[in-house]
Amino acid sequence: MGKNLTKRSEDYSKWYNELVVKADMAENSAVRGCMVIKPYGFAIWEKMQAELDRMFKETGHENAYFPLFVPKSLFEAEEKNAEGFAKECAVVTHYRLQNDPDKPGKLRVDPNAKLEEELVVRPTSEAIIWNTFKGWVQSYRDLPLLINQWANVVRWEMRTRLFLRTAEFLWQEGHTAHATEAEAIDEAKTMNGVYAQFAEEFMAMPVIQGVKTESERFAGAIETFCIEALMQDGKALQAGTSHFLGQNFAKAFDVKFATKEGKQEYVWATSWGVSTRLVGALIMSHSDDNGLVLPPKLAPIQVVIVPIYKGIEQLDAISEKVGPLVKELKAKGISVKFDNRDTHKPGFKFNEYELKGVPVRLAIGQRDLENGTYEVARRDTLAKETVPMDDVVAKIEFLLEDIQKNIYQKAHAFREDNITEVDTYEEFKKVLEEKGGFISAHWDGTNETEEKIKNETKATIRCIPLATENKEGKCIVTGKTSSKRVLFAKAY
Amino acid sequence: MGKNLTKRSEDYSKWYNELVVKADMAENSAVRGCMVIKPYGFAIWEKMQAELDRMFKETGHENAYFPLFVPKSLFEAEEKNAEGFAKECAVVTHYRLQNDPDKPGKLRVDPNAKLEEELVVRPTSEAIIWNTFKGWVQSYRDLPLLINQWANVVRWEMRTRLFLRTAEFLWQEGHTAHATEAEAIDEAKTMNGVYAQFAEEFMAMPVIQGVKTESERFAGAIETFCIEALMQDGKALQAGTSHFLGQNFAKAFDVKFATKEGKQEYVWATSWGVSTRLVGALIMSHSDDNGLVLPPKLAPIQVVIVPIYKGIEQLDAISEKVGPLVKELKAKGISVKFDNRDTHKPGFKFNEYELKGVPVRLAIGQRDLENGTYEVARRDTLAKETVPMDDVVAKIEFLLEDIQKNIYQKAHAFREDNITEVDTYEEFKKVLEEKGGFISAHWDGTNETEEKIKNETKATIRCIPLATENKEGKCIVTGKTSSKRVLFAKAY
Ligand SMILES: [Zn+2]
Ligand SMILES: [Zn+2]
Repeated sequence: MGKNLTKRSEDYSKWYNELVVKADMAENSAVRGCMVIKPYGFAIWEKMQAELDRMFKETGHENAYFPLFVPKSLFEAEEKNAEGFAKECAVVTHYRLQNDPDKPGKLRVDPNAKLEEELVVRPTSEAIIWNTFKGWVQSYRDLPLLINQWANVVRWEMRTRLFLRTAEFLWQEGHTAHATEAEAIDEAKTMNGVYAQFAEEFMAMPVIQGVKTESERFAGAIETFCIEALMQDGKALQAGTSHFLGQNFAKAFDVKFATKEGKQEYVWATSWGVSTRLVGALIMSHSDDNGLVLPPKLAPIQVVIVPIYKGIEQLDAISEKVGPLVKELKAKGISVKFDNRDTHKPGFKFNEYELKGVPVRLAIGQRDLENGTYEVARRDTLAKETVPMDDVVAKIEFLLEDIQKNIYQKAHAFREDNITEVDTYEEFKKVLEEKGGFISAHWDGTNETEEKIKNETKATIRCIPLATENKEGKCIVTGKTSSKRVLFAKAY
Repeated sequence: MGKNLTKRSEDYSKWYNELVVKADMAENSAVRGCMVIKPYGFAIWEKMQAELDRMFKETGHENAYFPLFVPKSLFEAEEKNAEGFAKECAVVTHYRLQNDPDKPGKLRVDPNAKLEEELVVRPTSEAIIWNTFKGWVQSYRDLPLLINQWANVVRWEMRTRLFLRTAEFLWQEGHTAHATEAEAIDEAKTMNGVYAQFAEEFMAMPVIQGVKTESERFAGAIETFCIEALMQDGKALQAGTSHFLGQNFAKAFDVKFATKEGKQEYVWATSWGVSTRLVGALIMSHSDDNGLVLPPKLAPIQVVIVPIYKGIEQLDAISEKVGPLVKELKAKGISVKFDNRDTHKPGFKFNEYELKGVPVRLAIGQRDLENGTYEVARRDTLAKETVPMDDVVAKIEFLLEDIQKNIYQKAHAFREDNITEVDTYEEFKKVLEEKGGFISAHWDGTNETEEKIKNETKATIRCIPLATENKEGKCIVTGKTSSKRVLFAKAY
């Protein structure tokens, strides 16, 4: 197959783009900024969905589905949210095409089929959902309302990259309504915690939980919680956000409830989401110059078995051994592929599965048959060993766990090595330039300083970490008092 | 709760609309023709998806995801398909809103953000997918290409009804490419068979497999296979279609492959889909004047347990008995809900679960506690009996199977009673008027006769059944020779 993958050290961004395409994850489409998610990439997204969906249900949420379109008058009801998304909205203005009288065989928009009110293709669903919630909430008995939606959304981004930023993307958006402020804040934190747990446990991607500064907050939120991860090139990636929305949407859509005491009060809201961007984060967290490295818990194929043979008789002998192994692995819930295609050579297959990040690869040839062994290779370290057939299932089970742990630890060590505390702006710029990663520094809490740093260095405040204790210091730019260090980075 | 459901015999259509809303399945939204699928309705769709997805994967298909938007120039490439959908397309013409200078706080479409080429919101994805397949298929080794997509689509229907016909709906669309005509026809038939199996086994809905006449065919298809079901009001419902597309799309998008012999040939195509319409079909197949009747295999809650008590002590005593039962049922994969809400009375709960079609209802009160029994009610027949606690798990397991079978048999018997053979047009009109259902009659095979019957009676040819043997006869309208009876009906 010949990978010819650009090295990360040469051009990280080019490496990423090539890898996504060569590993059959996704490709650009004929629609500006929209991608096609190919079966191999989609299988990873499906595995992510299955785990997240289970976690949402375990925390009491139910799925529902709301319209793709938002009438303009609803879209503009919550002013800040509308402002935040107005500049990147796909707008439906007509509902019919007709034959173009000037161009035989071509179609044009039918000028007589103009909508009275334009429809915005949802960039996020707060507006349409809160307009619906109005009918669902009358009394405290109807609360909390814990709803999730799996959907596609569209944001007309100017610069797009496969998985990381696309005009259309797939995501889930949770939307909840609560009787009290405290309960809503708790929900927003809980779901941010669920995201963190998912990222670390399944994606093997360490994340920092924090809150966003005002300028980085979701349009319409009072507080935005987030999980931030560090990519191998030293840039940060926002992997999920969870918003406490206060009563902004309840007021915009007049959603009130009768308390136990019979008073009418506005409900309190949250929303939270993760998207196919996670697939990009997964790729960038672990993969190497040979291709993808996937965590076993999300790998579409966990084990691949490649036969090395000459002639049909050798293949038959190998198949006889491999058949029962495949059956046994499947019974244990391990996804396994026996690649007995006669159209490709073993070397080609080795390359392909390395590129596609299959965690464990078994090879079996004539000598293995004679010795009763398999050659077992792990994708993360590329280490190989010869394993007796009797031990191979246990070995595979061990490796799937060990690879999951190992790539997490590697990513975690890298992240820890790349959080640098600095106390001066000079040092800040030097570290940002020479080392990258997260920079932990004091900031005076003003938009102005944040903006100045962003303009001068391209670094933004990724978050105010939840786990960091308060400890006074002086802002690296203005010298004013700061109660706590915050994390800066250049970001995706 | 007070169901106040219109009776089916009074107004079937009103009964359906009320039931969908009162059973919390779905509701109309602020967007014309688009519905909100509520959690209870969505849970049924999720169960359908899970089974179908498993069946698709077992038959070798993989999921992928393609853009929501289709550029107009791609949309119009396959002429018949474009013609078929042009009149009901939502069209995106702009990508930005701006503040309306005339109306403070309001937004308007930014006239400077007009797209160079309009984007059609996919009514179906053949165009965008075949434009992508062009890059995926070079050689016979790349075939067959067996792809499925779960997605939302939009067709600007003028008359809409919850689940049955909505402007936006959720569906799956399979799109496959093959080296030979025979293989593609076989695929289209196979997937129609998968739909039939799903409908009968999981939805407990008997269906007739057949092919569509030319006038009812999918736009761009050579042959459309379908499954047709009969609703309780005697109207037919098309529940799924599977199309053999010939080389139409391959030619429109220039998708060729090199054969083993090195020749360049166009590939052969199929597409096939079922949608949230199935939820409407499910409701209409089994439900009664008391509410939903759901097949156990698709019911979000299979068993509900309602405690009848006075005071917390009685509830505690009941909970102690119910706790282990719930655990045991869950361990068997049975979804069970213990409704111990103190805010609602047992009678209210009985009504609610009857309305929502929960297959098995257990009640337990003071006397049951003393006698060591449960009252067990089945939703399909409304029969109740008293069952010793020791036997209740076995009873539940029996009932879940028996209800699944029973509602299938009931629907099947109804369908068989409502297929009427007629040999004259007079008889045809009489049966259609007085009895409804499927009418099996000879037809001369021409569009003209089909059109005449449709215009005069509103009945259409639902399908030419695959299972019916050829047997000559005379067209009921023209008296010309016919090789086989076809099925007519008024349809949803
Ligand atoms: Zn953060
Ligand atoms: Zn049919």
